[in-house]
Amino acid sequence: MAQLTGKKVAFLATDGFEDSELTAPWEAVTAQGAEAVLIAPESGSISGKKGHEQQVDLTTADAAPGDYDALVLPGGVANGDHLRMDGPAVAFVREVFAQHKPVGVICHGGWILTDADVLHGRTITSYPSLKTDLSNAGATWVDEEVVVDAGLVSSRTPDDLPAFCDKLVEEIGEGKHEGQTA
Amino acid sequence: MAQLTGKKVAFLATDGFEDSELTAPWEAVTAQGAEAVLIAPESGSISGKKGHEQQVDLTTADAAPGDYDALVLPGGVANGDHLRMDGPAVAFVREVFAQHKPVGVICHGGWILTDADVLHGRTITSYPSLKTDLSNAGATWVDEEVVVDAGLVSSRTPDDLPAFCDKLVEEIGEGKHEGQTA
Repeated sequence: MAQLTGKKVAFLATDGFEDSELTAPWEAVTAQGAEAVLIAPESGSISGKKGHEQQVDLTTADAAPGDYDALVLPGGVANGDHLRMDGPAVAFVREVFAQHKPVGVICHGGWILTDADVLHGRTITSYPSLKTDLSNAGATWVDEEVVVDAGLVSSRTPDDLPAFCDKLVEEIGEGKHEGQTA
Repeated sequence: MAQLTGKKVAFLATDGFEDSELTAPWEAVTAQGAEAVLIAPESGSISGKKGHEQQVDLTTADAAPGDYDALVLPGGVANGDHLRMDGPAVAFVREVFAQHKPVGVICHGGWILTDADVLHGRTITSYPSLKTDLSNAGATWVDEEVVVDAGLVSSRTPDDLPAFCDKLVEEIGEGKHEGQTA
């Protein structure tokens, strides 16, 4: 496992996230020494579909992409559906790609990548319902437990979390990727 | 109001639909004399997000598009997300368009139209989170309470239901539209 000491990882989510898709990668990166920060459209706390509640550290309006070394987008259909309607969240995601930083995305977390328009020519997986949306946004969609494309790490469901977390830590450890761009 | 006596209207949905987006158009078309039929991926009954439960009349695998004069796609994020993963549902929708029959779609009901690939050159509205997906599928997306484009009637949320139901009944009364196609 890569050492992530000194790295800062942004987690971007809102209510209705898939609990384990926030908590498992959070534990994976902090176990390697990274600092994790929860960013959401509104201050206060957010709740997962199974009841995990977590304090929001910063709102999307106040978050600066330059302060982070990587981004994680958990899934959950309501989370993915609502997050993409927050303008500052979309702008944050796009800027992280423009800065070539690693991004991990799982399940329904990928919808916002279409609004940020960062999928042209990229290879990705997701919850199967997003296949058409990600393909129409320019991606090549594949059905694999984890896909790594130049700093973009993607998986389908909570069952894929062990493989997802391993690759996420690895890509964050490597740092910026030229092919990760907006 | 148009008379719909002798017309048969398919309602396609699964669990997690927005209750009023099924019940209000159902009442609107049956009040004008149409027969309404609830089609879902599985037999038994389906439940709305607010608790409305309704018996499924026919499964998507058993439903023949030629038997219906029109189609209604209610919203609800979970409903819209799951319905699009049912192959027979996607094929049913595509064939209704190929047969030039009127279609009413509201809120998150529109996702399946991208999987059916019937949106090229069409004008549509939806719940705002679907804007990018419908646009990337070839549609011109507008923010209006109801949009009518050659037999395709669309609205954004339950607040739009009165206007949606009026136009839906009108378009079904008119019958087939050449511009409605697959």
